[in-house]
Amino acid sequence: MTDRIREFLRTRRPDGPCLVVDLDVVRDKFLSFAKAMPDTRVFYAVKANPAPEVLALLAELGSCFDTASVAEVRMALAAGATPDRISFGNTIKKERDIATAFELGVRLYAVDCEAEVEKIARVAPGARVFCRILSDGAGAEWPLSRKFGCEPAMAPRILEHAHRLGLEAYGVSFHVGSQQRNTGAWDAAVASAAGIFREMSDRGITLKMVNLGGGFPTRYLKNVPAVQAYAQAISDAILTHFGNQVPETIIEPGRGMVGSAGIIKAEVVLVSKKSDTDDVRWVYLDIGKFGGLAETMDEAIRYPIRTERDGDEMTPCVLAGPTCDSADVMYEKDPYFLPVSLEIGDEVLIEGTGAYTTTYSAVAFNGFEPLKSYVI
Amino acid sequence: MTDRIREFLRTRRPDGPCLVVDLDVVRDKFLSFAKAMPDTRVFYAVKANPAPEVLALLAELGSCFDTASVAEVRMALAAGATPDRISFGNTIKKERDIATAFELGVRLYAVDCEAEVEKIARVAPGARVFCRILSDGAGAEWPLSRKFGCEPAMAPRILEHAHRLGLEAYGVSFHVGSQQRNTGAWDAAVASAAGIFREMSDRGITLKMVNLGGGFPTRYLKNVPAVQAYAQAISDAILTHFGNQVPETIIEPGRGMVGSAGIIKAEVVLVSKKSDTDDVRWVYLDIGKFGGLAETMDEAIRYPIRTERDGDEMTPCVLAGPTCDSADVMYEKDPYFLPVSLEIGDEVLIEGTGAYTTTYSAVAFNGFEPLKSYVI
Repeated sequence: MTDRIREFLRTRRPDGPCLVVDLDVVRDKFLSFAKAMPDTRVFYAVKANPAPEVLALLAELGSCFDTASVAEVRMALAAGATPDRISFGNTIKKERDIATAFELGVRLYAVDCEAEVEKIARVAPGARVFCRILSDGAGAEWPLSRKFGCEPAMAPRILEHAHRLGLEAYGVSFHVGSQQRNTGAWDAAVASAAGIFREMSDRGITLKMVNLGGGFPTRYLKNVPAVQAYAQAISDAILTHFGNQVPETIIEPGRGMVGSAGIIKAEVVLVSKKSDTDDVRWVYLDIGKFGGLAETMDEAIRYPIRTERDGDEMTPCVLAGPTCDSADVMYEKDPYFLPVSLEIGDEVLIEGTGAYTTTYSAVAFNGFEPLKSYVI
Repeated sequence: MTDRIREFLRTRRPDGPCLVVDLDVVRDKFLSFAKAMPDTRVFYAVKANPAPEVLALLAELGSCFDTASVAEVRMALAAGATPDRISFGNTIKKERDIATAFELGVRLYAVDCEAEVEKIARVAPGARVFCRILSDGAGAEWPLSRKFGCEPAMAPRILEHAHRLGLEAYGVSFHVGSQQRNTGAWDAAVASAAGIFREMSDRGITLKMVNLGGGFPTRYLKNVPAVQAYAQAISDAILTHFGNQVPETIIEPGRGMVGSAGIIKAEVVLVSKKSDTDDVRWVYLDIGKFGGLAETMDEAIRYPIRTERDGDEMTPCVLAGPTCDSADVMYEKDPYFLPVSLEIGDEVLIEGTGAYTTTYSAVAFNGFEPLKSYVI
């Protein structure tokens, strides 16, 4: 909670659930990344929070942008970024979307297979491509599937294919998993990347960039290492595996940039018990899995929740959303401790919600409006 | 697939993923419910698909409406339903929303605890309430949590509380679980309801209605029983447990009314392998968990998928959506068999998607637009 958000909620008293994002926190985060990793370019992951005010601030501060779609490319451009500061980082792109991004000036694209390389070669001649490799994601709190990336052994063939088709085989990317609390998680992936650089060099092709991805955490209930600790661990990994042939590096923070800048204000709609003998109460909020808290899926992300009664005795609660969907339950396997005095109508503040909330919210499930957002 | 949908897709050729709903199917479904259960009023679950054309057709056919929010109450009214044909069926309601619904003329409300009864008594004096009881949901394909309903033993106290506060203790409701393929699932819940009727009668209060909920399935990959089979099983249960004191009954079909009326047209964006030795390919579509197919969560609902190459050899595929979210994978634990000849750019038709798709889709995750919908 920041003073500016507290003041906004006190004076504006917005009705219904809403997210409030404090730009001062975003600025601090950007500057701490820039300071801790001065030789690394920051590509903000637009999908984390594409609010125009957030993008405009970051563009002004000199950030680059990692985009997932043509719509996000346009948002980054509208915010003031030049096309050379935009990466089309989704490995899954329609050919016509690549063509549009290329027309808009974007020259940097992610790939993880030969078919994607061929699309880019057809409609974005001469563009730079980096190949995403798989990482096991151990230590990350948001699940990392095998959806993005190829086995490292395949990468040289894919990059050489790009080279032969007239593209610039530019580098390697990976993602160590979102909300990665282990600063050592980058080491193995950097080692893989260095191996691919060597293999490509043997083939006469010089790669230039390692895209270190995201994974930088937001502080939820558990402490997380500082940005400096990540910077040090990554720097050590680069030195270990690349020696004095240090590549160009970029990072793609999303959650780590905006997560802690946002707070969701919500309201207790109902408190009840399912039977007289239950120890666990059910607390229903006016926001749930379909209203912006999608990352509570499988109870993956556990947000800090504050109430005005936090000094009182705490008891275990199942926390659920307001929709008529049985799956709209946030914390049940591992109940959430909330004040026994919590009442219908009480305000609750859900912290660390600046990332992956507004855009995840459903258009109108059960007739509920999407999450409102205020950027201050 | 219906001829009308096939013709629409052929002539209109809409760009991007979209849902097409055939109103003729909705009409047939409504009439089959009405015919199979002539003494039961149908309250269509608006949340399943609130398209104005669907609501208007059902209103014209004489359907009533089960709503989850004030917005849905307004949609039902706008479609031509009178307030006496609307139930506010969400057990989790803000008091100010109850007040608004009451002003709009709604007189029937769901409750599952005393606190909710008290809200209704304060702002909707004299309204009818029914108490939702828990059901175990065995046999249902979409998970049923304990989110809605109380233990049956609590219901008489809650209903008596309503009575004492000047409300009309009107009945009992339950839900046997969405996509319920076992027609026998209603029996135990009807028995519980009958027990509550007797207990209330002993307290001098006559309940009138049993709300049999939803659960009526859409045909996905497996066969499902016909509406008549459900009607017969429910009728048998009522006779067994209520004898000749047959209560008023209502049903709340959502999926069973509109699921089979809709088809999503999507496109293959990428086909790839993660390593040379993998047997399983990855097929990426331009729609996924965040674009309308939320019910693939935990691989719960398995949609039939048709392609123009279905005569060819089929091989196992992981099916994923287009977003940069690792969780946006639909079928992986149990891979989906698709033609080995499937290519980037191919059209795929996802059947049985008329329910729980459009409104579930995210507002703009990754910059992708919400699912478009055409009702024909």
